[in-house]
Amino acid sequence: MKLHILGCYAATPRTLTNPTSQVLEIRNHVFLIDCGEGTQVQLRKTKIKFSRINHIFISHLHGDHFFGLPGLISTFRLLGRVKEMHIYGPKGIKEAITLLLKLGDSWTNFPLVFHELVSKESQLIYEDEKVTVETIPLNHRVYTNGFLFKEKLGERKLNIEAVGNYKIDKSSYQNIKNGRDITIANGKVISNAELTFDPPKPKSYAFCSDTAYKPGIIPQIKGTDVLYHESTFLDSEKHLSAKTKHATAKEAATIAKEAKVGTLILGHYSTRYKSIELFKEEAQTIFENVKLADDGKEFDF
Amino acid sequence: MKLHILGCYAATPRTLTNPTSQVLEIRNHVFLIDCGEGTQVQLRKTKIKFSRINHIFISHLHGDHFFGLPGLISTFRLLGRVKEMHIYGPKGIKEAITLLLKLGDSWTNFPLVFHELVSKESQLIYEDEKVTVETIPLNHRVYTNGFLFKEKLGERKLNIEAVGNYKIDKSSYQNIKNGRDITIANGKVISNAELTFDPPKPKSYAFCSDTAYKPGIIPQIKGTDVLYHESTFLDSEKHLSAKTKHATAKEAATIAKEAKVGTLILGHYSTRYKSIELFKEEAQTIFENVKLADDGKEFDF
Repeated sequence: MKLHILGCYAATPRTLTNPTSQVLEIRNHVFLIDCGEGTQVQLRKTKIKFSRINHIFISHLHGDHFFGLPGLISTFRLLGRVKEMHIYGPKGIKEAITLLLKLGDSWTNFPLVFHELVSKESQLIYEDEKVTVETIPLNHRVYTNGFLFKEKLGERKLNIEAVGNYKIDKSSYQNIKNGRDITIANGKVISNAELTFDPPKPKSYAFCSDTAYKPGIIPQIKGTDVLYHESTFLDSEKHLSAKTKHATAKEAATIAKEAKVGTLILGHYSTRYKSIELFKEEAQTIFENVKLADDGKEFDF
Repeated sequence: MKLHILGCYAATPRTLTNPTSQVLEIRNHVFLIDCGEGTQVQLRKTKIKFSRINHIFISHLHGDHFFGLPGLISTFRLLGRVKEMHIYGPKGIKEAITLLLKLGDSWTNFPLVFHELVSKESQLIYEDEKVTVETIPLNHRVYTNGFLFKEKLGERKLNIEAVGNYKIDKSSYQNIKNGRDITIANGKVISNAELTFDPPKPKSYAFCSDTAYKPGIIPQIKGTDVLYHESTFLDSEKHLSAKTKHATAKEAATIAKEAKVGTLILGHYSTRYKSIELFKEEAQTIFENVKLADDGKEFDF
């Protein structure tokens, strides 16, 4: 699981800071999460191929989280895309994108499939044999969802030495990976435990931005490996935080602690502070394993 | 008159090339022309104060000419703007901006005044005591206007030495600048010609992008000091140019020559070419005074 931070600063794009956008690589999927202005340029810097993105998740319809989407869609068209593109976001996103394309007489050559969200309860919005994606309803000034990405338990790993010793034919490998015992030539049954190792523990990633402090999300994200939680402000600006429905570094850390996550990544910083290290210092008074998002940074998990 | 090129490349924003946007400083006005994605970041680099911009002119509704506008408007709001902002552009621009602001529940605190354009004839769309702005109807895949910015003849310049010699009171200066003769204490009439110099020749700037070769614009832009004309392609790609309703460097130069403009600035380059110098070379086979726009470049006239 790999997370690329394309942008992680609050409000308006500046020369050196970009609004929210991330790419999550998980089990060969490349998921784009939020798409502030400038996302496509940031994406180019990662060297991730645009064609690998098939699913875009938009948390809410504030400009700093989706004003890069119309341009990105236009670019997919210029790049000759033909594959379906799935877009998950609040109701209204379809109307906005459709209107902008219509005004420019710029229809896409590929199907744009909108999955508009309205529920205030968590929903499973994507599932295949490898991963699931659920919404995490958040508390912001407009309708907002975070997203919980979970790997499914993978198949068992073949113990190459053991299957070699028993001279098991390759045609049985998939059955073994699926957990079956195997009967060999002499009629002896070899237990699956002898032929395989446990699959790696499935990983999970929770993206929570933008939101006020919302302890209600803790049960859903309990034990998540990695939590990205916004921390627009420090505790000293708690009054602003409450007013604008954002969170402080302290509040983000409290969520991380209570949910017993593995790692907390902070982001969505207001640019009023001298250094983003201040966010880490504040959060670490409550929760130890804190990392700071920054534009262009990559995290491997 | 000063022109700042914020972006001058065709199609999609890339790491080192920005879509169309320019700032024209003319008689203390700061006019923004087109607003591709990333314009606000490019604008910050110029050190021009955002608050000095009161008029934005949008040529057409292709993304590379206006997808930066919603974000710029949001930023004006964050910067605490209260002054009116005037936006001139094709019909539909109001609906698009209004919808995007509505979806984010992000109303501006300042009046947004839309001047929607539908006419296929040139129109005077702005006038004050110092400048006029007219549309230049162009020929592109969607409804598109260029813009012709003209200084008005300014007031006459005071000849400080002469008014000093005649001991003329400062209260008469404005009348003198307006062209009046003056009667001094002894009853003698001093002709205005003796007290003033001619005002500087009014300057003019024509912005023509995007457009196919359109000789019909020549009478309107005849004698313009500076013409920015798109040259998406070289003559070797004339077939693409015709198909997409863009112009070649040769065609831009032909317009410049026929219109007897002072300077031709080329821009809106396709990124398929090795060097933008090729555009200049091609244009100069037809018209000598060619300059190349480039992102971040400033022209003083």
